[in-house]
Amino acid sequence: MTKKRILTGLQPSGALHLGNYFGSLKPLVDLTFDANNEVFLMVADYHALTSVRNGDELRANIYEIVRDYLAAGVDPSKVTLFRQSDNSHHTEMGWVMNCLVTVPFLMQAHSYKDKVAKGLEANAGLFTYPMLMAGDIVLYDTDLVPVGEDQRQHLEYTREAVTKFNNAYGEILKEPTEMIVEGVGVVPGTDGQKMSKSYKNTIPLFGNREEIQKAIMGIVTDSSGEKPQNVYNIHKVVYQAMGKEMSDLDKLYEENLGKYKVLKEALLEDINELIAPMRAKKAEITDSDIKEVLAIGVEKARLVSGQTINKVRDAIGINL
Amino acid sequence: MTKKRILTGLQPSGALHLGNYFGSLKPLVDLTFDANNEVFLMVADYHALTSVRNGDELRANIYEIVRDYLAAGVDPSKVTLFRQSDNSHHTEMGWVMNCLVTVPFLMQAHSYKDKVAKGLEANAGLFTYPMLMAGDIVLYDTDLVPVGEDQRQHLEYTREAVTKFNNAYGEILKEPTEMIVEGVGVVPGTDGQKMSKSYKNTIPLFGNREEIQKAIMGIVTDSSGEKPQNVYNIHKVVYQAMGKEMSDLDKLYEENLGKYKVLKEALLEDINELIAPMRAKKAEITDSDIKEVLAIGVEKARLVSGQTINKVRDAIGINL
Repeated sequence: MTKKRILTGLQPSGALHLGNYFGSLKPLVDLTFDANNEVFLMVADYHALTSVRNGDELRANIYEIVRDYLAAGVDPSKVTLFRQSDNSHHTEMGWVMNCLVTVPFLMQAHSYKDKVAKGLEANAGLFTYPMLMAGDIVLYDTDLVPVGEDQRQHLEYTREAVTKFNNAYGEILKEPTEMIVEGVGVVPGTDGQKMSKSYKNTIPLFGNREEIQKAIMGIVTDSSGEKPQNVYNIHKVVYQAMGKEMSDLDKLYEENLGKYKVLKEALLEDINELIAPMRAKKAEITDSDIKEVLAIGVEKARLVSGQTINKVRDAIGINL
Repeated sequence: MTKKRILTGLQPSGALHLGNYFGSLKPLVDLTFDANNEVFLMVADYHALTSVRNGDELRANIYEIVRDYLAAGVDPSKVTLFRQSDNSHHTEMGWVMNCLVTVPFLMQAHSYKDKVAKGLEANAGLFTYPMLMAGDIVLYDTDLVPVGEDQRQHLEYTREAVTKFNNAYGEILKEPTEMIVEGVGVVPGTDGQKMSKSYKNTIPLFGNREEIQKAIMGIVTDSSGEKPQNVYNIHKVVYQAMGKEMSDLDKLYEENLGKYKVLKEALLEDINELIAPMRAKKAEITDSDIKEVLAIGVEKARLVSGQTINKVRDAIGINL
């Protein structure tokens, strides 16, 4: 069986929380463990530039996300872990894609419309972001792109650009398909809403014990003296990820009805048990390890993207 | 005195006509003869992609324009003659610039508004073109950019992006100034309107004698038997460029009142005399000469743009 080429990545946007871990990082790492997949894992730092205008912050976030990938179990000898900005083929391909689609088409993109709906002025990077992403995807002859349900449109945009390219220049680029990834579990935030930095309801993924403890003790509970649903819902996802028996969890909560502190402490212990090995691994990864991983990764990435960009340059007429 | 760094260029868009020569090519070549100028002469092939979707056409046009530059007198040992798409710093810098300006700002650009006013759907390349151009300019620490009066806005757009960059990241990019270049003379077309491919009123610059003759014989004249103004207006510019005495031209036209054929043949001879050496030079330039010139040129270009892009990468946080 031929392996499926998968391109995936995350924007380097600061410390991850438990919601990121279960919603994005873990499912993504799990993909790399499947021998049927050939995974290209990209640190999308040029995409991050659409929202970050501070060099020190972006640099720190790049180190952070690579460290997170590695700590969460990505094996750089098995996947191609690289950084977008290390490979100039991305902005080049993005420009080619830009020249194929119209302005009104890009105006229909959710990422742009949402910004405008909020009364914000989108920058031109955010506006053309779907075409940089289309470039990212086609460079690697990607079969599948893992996305959440809400990002399905990105792949439609990529396919539209691919179709326009192939109609103009011949069948050169591969049409990718979305791979809808369900988070391993949706972890609610400490207030029961979706866990999100903007709601300030997060539990830090790689915080130290005190930080995690503080967040857990802050989980909102009602005062009915019954099972604290917000605590339980988080606990459930953690339990599953640890491979523990769900019936044991239910038993624990039944035996401790109303004892919020006891249950929160049990949750803290379990999160710690789950995270501790990753945290330990993360602490050992030096900046120089990261640079080395990325340097090797981008060489592997360029071997593939270089073939595509060369065919593209032939087709559009800039290879003399 | 410090030399002024000048970035200029033309889009490779097919065979030049006499209007291009006097309006753009000659003034541009003249700039390279001024020892106070350090000229970077760019073949803007990535810009051409906003309007050309045929690989063979673009490739042929690239060869053509370099051949035109060289035939018209550009000395590649004195200027940095290079091709935009040979240097990946351009699309990279263009992306950085895109992330700094808003969509409504780009919507005010003449190039975009004109397209929309004509009821056409602009592609996203055309829309973000001013930021790719801003990238082109800042990469070379450019002091001056020769533009026609109608392109003044491009430099305003570049300065706006430079200001936003420098405000966000520190004083790194140089603000360029426009250098308003008057054509050596405005050559009317064969119908008296502005000479333009879209009006089909051009005289080919490097056509053979027959092609030029055909165009000249087609110059529209009235039937009053007086001085044929359309012929005279073209002749005047040619005469000036040849360094001939204007009074001789006037004498010629007075002595041949109403003799349109005689006057058109005189114009043909003068154009031939002006163009023949360039045409001969052009015929000697091989494709392999052109590749060599461009290969040397882009090495020189990268030495300069590489320093800028490195400072930019430091500032935005992607240099680890």
